[in-house]
Amino acid sequence: MIGHDALLTDLYQLTMLQGYLEAGMTETAVFEFFVRRLPPGWSFFIAAGLAQAVDYLEQLRFHEADLAWLAASGRFSHAVVEYLGHLRFTGDVDALPEGSCCFPDEPIVRITAPLPVAQLVESRLINLLHFQTLIASKAARLRLAAPDKLLVDFGLRRAHGGEAALFAARASYLAGFDGSATTLAAPRFAIPVFGTMAHSYVQAHVSEVRAFESFARAQPDNVVLLIDTYDTEEGAQRVVEVAPRLAAAGIRIKAVRIDSGDLAGHARRVRAILDDGGLTEVGIFASSSLDETDLVRFRAERVPIDGFGVGTRLTTCADHPYLDCAYKLQEYAGQPRRKRSEGKQTWPGRKQVWRRYAAGELAGDTLALEGEAIAGTPLLVEVVRSGQRRAELEDLAAARAHAAAEIAALPEPLKQLAATTPYPVTVSSGLRALAVEVDRRTAGGGPKGEA
Amino acid sequence: MIGHDALLTDLYQLTMLQGYLEAGMTETAVFEFFVRRLPPGWSFFIAAGLAQAVDYLEQLRFHEADLAWLAASGRFSHAVVEYLGHLRFTGDVDALPEGSCCFPDEPIVRITAPLPVAQLVESRLINLLHFQTLIASKAARLRLAAPDKLLVDFGLRRAHGGEAALFAARASYLAGFDGSATTLAAPRFAIPVFGTMAHSYVQAHVSEVRAFESFARAQPDNVVLLIDTYDTEEGAQRVVEVAPRLAAAGIRIKAVRIDSGDLAGHARRVRAILDDGGLTEVGIFASSSLDETDLVRFRAERVPIDGFGVGTRLTTCADHPYLDCAYKLQEYAGQPRRKRSEGKQTWPGRKQVWRRYAAGELAGDTLALEGEAIAGTPLLVEVVRSGQRRAELEDLAAARAHAAAEIAALPEPLKQLAATTPYPVTVSSGLRALAVEVDRRTAGGGPKGEA
Repeated sequence: MIGHDALLTDLYQLTMLQGYLEAGMTETAVFEFFVRRLPPGWSFFIAAGLAQAVDYLEQLRFHEADLAWLAASGRFSHAVVEYLGHLRFTGDVDALPEGSCCFPDEPIVRITAPLPVAQLVESRLINLLHFQTLIASKAARLRLAAPDKLLVDFGLRRAHGGEAALFAARASYLAGFDGSATTLAAPRFAIPVFGTMAHSYVQAHVSEVRAFESFARAQPDNVVLLIDTYDTEEGAQRVVEVAPRLAAAGIRIKAVRIDSGDLAGHARRVRAILDDGGLTEVGIFASSSLDETDLVRFRAERVPIDGFGVGTRLTTCADHPYLDCAYKLQEYAGQPRRKRSEGKQTWPGRKQVWRRYAAGELAGDTLALEGEAIAGTPLLVEVVRSGQRRAELEDLAAARAHAAAEIAALPEPLKQLAATTPYPVTVSSGLRALAVEVDRRTAGGGPKGEA
Repeated sequence: MIGHDALLTDLYQLTMLQGYLEAGMTETAVFEFFVRRLPPGWSFFIAAGLAQAVDYLEQLRFHEADLAWLAASGRFSHAVVEYLGHLRFTGDVDALPEGSCCFPDEPIVRITAPLPVAQLVESRLINLLHFQTLIASKAARLRLAAPDKLLVDFGLRRAHGGEAALFAARASYLAGFDGSATTLAAPRFAIPVFGTMAHSYVQAHVSEVRAFESFARAQPDNVVLLIDTYDTEEGAQRVVEVAPRLAAAGIRIKAVRIDSGDLAGHARRVRAILDDGGLTEVGIFASSSLDETDLVRFRAERVPIDGFGVGTRLTTCADHPYLDCAYKLQEYAGQPRRKRSEGKQTWPGRKQVWRRYAAGELAGDTLALEGEAIAGTPLLVEVVRSGQRRAELEDLAAARAHAAAEIAALPEPLKQLAATTPYPVTVSSGLRALAVEVDRRTAGGGPKGEA
């Protein structure tokens, strides 16, 4: 499901590689992955996807079939095919640990490698880092909207392909979800998995009551009954009806699930029906196109729902299904570089982010050059050196704990879901000076005399 | 990259399977995949993803490691693990050929199989069919917005994972794109691939002119020069500067690319610069957050752009990144079934769609029961019978031709990008009568006496 195919890259990475090789441009390049701006209403990002990015770099190989295709395409020289056949990632990776809070323009991952290689890996690196960072950030917002509820990823079916479903399960768990309905997330990432029943289960039985009983007897430790196939409140009544028979068999109903209509209104009426029927311990679980705005409203209105399945709007990040992110050349052969395209300017050079804390809260970041003397804690850490992992990457549980601590330490206004006060990120004087110098040097697209 | 893992399913499919087996409910079930409603402004869907859905069903196997995980999870009986170990898809598939235009409530794929199997495959089938249908439909809108321009999928980096990138390349090509920048789309699906250069290529060189020359000499048959790294119009001037030197070496510049700022304004000024420099044959290719609204505007304003790279907004379908689709039980053991949840009611029974044409145009569809005598052409065709393909599925080229013909035959108002007149889909009297009958039979969640 999660495979790394060397040809999963934009064709231009390969055509540029040929250009670099022919021009002898194989010196060290520094690229940084960062996000340019926050989606409307957002206040922060949660960095995620590093584990898969490092796996990709470590596994990067052009196999015989890839090389055969490249050779047969007629687009590439023999030297290029030869070079790709021997290509391994022997560079460095510096990165924010997964689960870190971060902000626009801050490098999340930095790659230092020979130019053709650092360029080649751009497409898949962005593909891996962008999506998990997107989903982790979205999931953190959902978690902030419902701090004390069970939150489960229900989004496999509408995720954009199988890899997206698995990555969404991982990224949402990392950012504070309790688990996923996607079975494969358990063997693959040791993520807790949750499951109830579908409408078809109820429909297939001759009656709702029969469906409830057969399900409970087959899954006595996990009895969550879906009550809205025909009529939600009647469904709740039927739960009250079957509860004593199940109790007699030693089976406890854990919860009911509502998946349609006015969830708040149904939940209140269902709560009353269950309580009247003596089922005060039976929880209410809800799903159906939920987003953080719904969770905030339910919380404000004290709607008696104990847990939520969040599907489509989590795994597609439906309100903003992408981040404006980039992977940009910041230095080549020791010379800082910068892109100046309108609205897409970047800060040049190898950068580091320093974070200051005050009373246990994040108090402000400084984006600076790597060597500058800046107050605070440097956030980017060494991950890979000369193609070798510096240490084991933090595992998912550690990244999840890190994300929880980071989110808890956010200033209160940033925990609100409508962004008002942006987090202070200062650009160091050293970095500003370098940008001016690089602009001067490349004014007019490079030194005139060089053409 | 595209693998089918049997555990890539929602956990509840497996818990329900245990319920079905324990209740002896293994008779034939009929499920249909369909979309409930059109996103705002849309007028039609393009069915896509069937080839991958059939591959999935054919390859469905629980391997030793899967079975071991299931057994160790403690959630499943020995009988369930045993059943899954022998499970193969031996059912039927009926479907709209890929590339077909379709409309809300019309079945796109119908699965007929023993209930536990037809249920189990729901999650991945939706995951496969939903995404490609979404992207094919979006791509068809982009193609309608720019009928005579080169359109290339640029969306690998922001697609939701690797599978999404590949499927988006496939679905957009199927619906009329000229190709993709994703290299792997060529060996995997025989899709034409396109590539130019990135800003980093220009930045890495000492000057823009050096970058243009080195690229052109390395890729003499595919010279597309990116001119906006520093200043777009100056970049165009530099193209004029290098053109004679390249021409002397027998190298023709095919196009320039603009990737930032006011694309229309830049394109006009760049066209003038190129024309003044005698480069009237050099095309202009544009990219940068493009969507169909931009393409419509450029066309109306006769902006001199010859081709577009469409990335994020295509591969994430950013304006509406999901379809409200479902896979619902319509019949079990010969009995029609129906879900009545608020806002999510379904039409019961095995259905067929009949399409009428007038003067070569689509004139209206009837959604009816399979056996009804209805005027028109039935759209769902036999694809798999008892687990065996009826014939080779149409290949991608045939599906692409089919989509082009279908879109060409749409009534003119449906080709507009702001939907006004909905396409007429009539529900047959037989189907309406059956819905009433099923409701009567299941009023109150099933026959009272059955509990």
